[in-house]
Amino acid sequence: MFIRNCWYVAAWDKEVPADGFLSRTIINTPVVLWRDAESKVIALVDRCCHRGAKLSMGRKENGGDCVRCMYHGLVFDRTGQCIAAPAQDRIPPQARVQSFPVVERHRWVWIWMGDPQAADPALIPDTQWLDHPEWRSKDGYLHYDVDYLLIADNLLDFSHLPFLHPSTLGGSPDYAAVLPKVERNARGVRLTKWVPNTEPPAYSAKYANYAPGAQVDRWTYYDFIVPGVLLMDTGMMPAGTGGQDAHRENSVAFRGCQALTPETETSTHYFFAHAHNFMLDRPDVTAEIHAGVERAFEEDRVMITSQQQNLAHDAAFKMVPLSVDAALSQFRWVVDQMAKKELAA
Amino acid sequence: MFIRNCWYVAAWDKEVPADGFLSRTIINTPVVLWRDAESKVIALVDRCCHRGAKLSMGRKENGGDCVRCMYHGLVFDRTGQCIAAPAQDRIPPQARVQSFPVVERHRWVWIWMGDPQAADPALIPDTQWLDHPEWRSKDGYLHYDVDYLLIADNLLDFSHLPFLHPSTLGGSPDYAAVLPKVERNARGVRLTKWVPNTEPPAYSAKYANYAPGAQVDRWTYYDFIVPGVLLMDTGMMPAGTGGQDAHRENSVAFRGCQALTPETETSTHYFFAHAHNFMLDRPDVTAEIHAGVERAFEEDRVMITSQQQNLAHDAAFKMVPLSVDAALSQFRWVVDQMAKKELAA
Amino acid sequence: MFIRNCWYVAAWDKEVPADGFLSRTIINTPVVLWRDAESKVIALVDRCCHRGAKLSMGRKENGGDCVRCMYHGLVFDRTGQCIAAPAQDRIPPQARVQSFPVVERHRWVWIWMGDPQAADPALIPDTQWLDHPEWRSKDGYLHYDVDYLLIADNLLDFSHLPFLHPSTLGGSPDYAAVLPKVERNARGVRLTKWVPNTEPPAYSAKYANYAPGAQVDRWTYYDFIVPGVLLMDTGMMPAGTGGQDAHRENSVAFRGCQALTPETETSTHYFFAHAHNFMLDRPDVTAEIHAGVERAFEEDRVMITSQQQNLAHDAAFKMVPLSVDAALSQFRWVVDQMAKKELAA
Repeated sequence: MFIRNCWYVAAWDKEVPADGFLSRTIINTPVVLWRDAESKVIALVDRCCHRGAKLSMGRKENGGDCVRCMYHGLVFDRTGQCIAAPAQDRIPPQARVQSFPVVERHRWVWIWMGDPQAADPALIPDTQWLDHPEWRSKDGYLHYDVDYLLIADNLLDFSHLPFLHPSTLGGSPDYAAVLPKVERNARGVRLTKWVPNTEPPAYSAKYANYAPGAQVDRWTYYDFIVPGVLLMDTGMMPAGTGGQDAHRENSVAFRGCQALTPETETSTHYFFAHAHNFMLDRPDVTAEIHAGVERAFEEDRVMITSQQQNLAHDAAFKMVPLSVDAALSQFRWVVDQMAKKELAA
Repeated sequence: MFIRNCWYVAAWDKEVPADGFLSRTIINTPVVLWRDAESKVIALVDRCCHRGAKLSMGRKENGGDCVRCMYHGLVFDRTGQCIAAPAQDRIPPQARVQSFPVVERHRWVWIWMGDPQAADPALIPDTQWLDHPEWRSKDGYLHYDVDYLLIADNLLDFSHLPFLHPSTLGGSPDYAAVLPKVERNARGVRLTKWVPNTEPPAYSAKYANYAPGAQVDRWTYYDFIVPGVLLMDTGMMPAGTGGQDAHRENSVAFRGCQALTPETETSTHYFFAHAHNFMLDRPDVTAEIHAGVERAFEEDRVMITSQQQNLAHDAAFKMVPLSVDAALSQFRWVVDQMAKKELAA
Repeated sequence: MFIRNCWYVAAWDKEVPADGFLSRTIINTPVVLWRDAESKVIALVDRCCHRGAKLSMGRKENGGDCVRCMYHGLVFDRTGQCIAAPAQDRIPPQARVQSFPVVERHRWVWIWMGDPQAADPALIPDTQWLDHPEWRSKDGYLHYDVDYLLIADNLLDFSHLPFLHPSTLGGSPDYAAVLPKVERNARGVRLTKWVPNTEPPAYSAKYANYAPGAQVDRWTYYDFIVPGVLLMDTGMMPAGTGGQDAHRENSVAFRGCQALTPETETSTHYFFAHAHNFMLDRPDVTAEIHAGVERAFEEDRVMITSQQQNLAHDAAFKMVPLSVDAALSQFRWVVDQMAKKELAA
């Protein structure tokens, strides 16, 4: 059961075209997204109320304010109300499709799948790094054939970095041995991980001017917010040059923005970017960092997909919890509480 | 639940070869069809009663009167009775497979899937246009991955023509605004649609010698008979040259024969031909008309398949009925009544 | 429901590599197999107890005595006990995965999926012909998308040979008319089939120096043992040169070893070899015999797969038993009794 009352990332802004439609399934619901004359995004259920045809196979009308279903010709306005139909003098009021609140902010199109009255834009996570003038990143998207919670688990336990990503995000095994501090907040958890005097990860070592073989202090602070949004401040500095609260002189720093949007119970949209604030005039560096992250995320995808297959194969399998599971256990608890609350309401 | 006591189109005549077998699943039942020495078609369940092997992987024997299962060698006669088996002196009487009444008529092979006693050939719809000397057409077949009733819906509401088929069968939107007269009969419905003074449809306009931009009167009269057979008289004549009961001078006329045969709950065989009675010595014209119809039917297939996906995704979705649904609602009611009656019997 | 307390063939010896892992699903259980420093095979459930990742995507450690899960770094010893995990001082005793008794013998790796205490190596069928110095064969493996019992049925009724395999293992229809003697034993059945004065089968006729068109006496004696292991002594000699208990002078003889290992309810691993004791220095003859057997087994695979599809399509279909089914009926009874006994225990 999915949480409905939260903001999901529906798309990168560029995925909703100036002409035409984007059709995307979000928490089992087909959604059609398009832009009106002012380029504002509109989102309706992608299913005509008449016979269930896809509105995304239709046509924009009234300057983009409306969509016409191209099966039998019904026209819907931006609120989802049917306002015209052939051979039909009076349109029945129940001839309407659900519309969804949408906010476009910092390159992501956010959609609220629950009660529209509760759709408070103040709840949208702050992803300013996606279009901040002092940061650079490339747009990432992966499609996963797994339950989104398995990816959330992955993102809530970075002890897997040295094992699954030795040549990219990894570092040495001692990195896995340091547990993060985990704090719960209203809509998720906050993790604080500080690993002094450790190996630099492969993907970022090349951008530092540190002595060959020198150890570093690594920091990774992030919020993980329902439904599955990660906002991360991470990087490294020369070992012993400041400590956890230092000014990060001579550091190599990143801001990660990632979002999981369930498509179905067993498939997930994954949006991500990994912004850096150095070498801003070097698009090749931005591309190289992005490629390293993509390679690591593909390592995750292969592992988590095989995990999903194992779990699907035997519903009776019980996981054995370990210390590294603290954050993911707390996040799953938050999700569970919110889902139960929605169910009761 | 499918109606059993009705004639289904099993195949185009040419699909049942002189040598060998045609294996085709009809309302969830695997059927093997072949021709005897007199070219008469025989139909049995395509499943040996012994271990369930496919008889269509077998061999014709006794001049085509029998089929031998090539797994363990059982021989079945045309009634489905096993008449020989290796190492078996006495053949048990229950060693038999179901046989089905078959009638080959006007290029189509019809099969009766229900009570053989009720298989009255007089109930076979008249598709004389398929081999009438004064009419020409090409053989059409499409496989659909949808419930056959969704295709029946499509064929019972031509208001979709201007929207889904603007460049083929279409015409202008005013065509959609005219509702057909709908009459119910014992095994289906009859639709009468007369649209005076409208645009000619793209696919037939080129065969008329009308003035450029001239309006036409369009007629479409058809029966739609269980399980899903459409017999159509359609065409156009210059606007105002006669009216609905005119002699159709200077008309461009067609006779459409179409048949839906469910394969499973979610897949369908679709047989069709669209005969014309002009330019009989021009096979290129016959081919061009057929190509236009095929293009339109492919437009239907794409739309209806996406509709099926939407419906499969959410079993709770309720369609909102409109005026244009009168014929399809009545036909679904006829199907429902017949199915219930069979279930009760 | 599968029998658990029996030896299954998990793999050909060469399939378990010196480096790395073999991952194979056996009776619905994912199994990882690898070799330790002494080349001894170890088998564990291929599913980490922590989050369900595949151990076969991991890394051998401690000279092959252990496997490390490369998702979060847990290390398991050969008994399946977790002995190390990052950031975890005390390993909980329930952090373990199931291990399976394994015996490598005569080229096959056998695995016991049930109670380890009952894993008596004396129960392993004798497949000495797979590496006997006086016999030659090639290693066969087929993957079937069918219930293993349908393949067992096939192997327990050779009356299908003249029909399904006329150009390979076949012979003339009179071969099918001779029923084998069937005897039940503790873990399966024994078949004895002696067909005097019959046609030689196509695949072996060429290795005999008999007169053209000469008839032969064919013998086929085999045990078929749970879960689905066939040990066969088969061949032919000139008709009338000795009888069933003769010394087989001038014979062409084979020893067949075959094993069915269910993967899931509807898929099966099939291991086989067909050893001959003539022309030992002619690898081309060994290859040719193997190719003939493979061709025949592919004929079986096509037939049985279509049979499985027919059975899956209609769960209500009841098979009509015939005389040729005596052996397969008895074997299915043995399997059923063992499964029920395990369920009760």
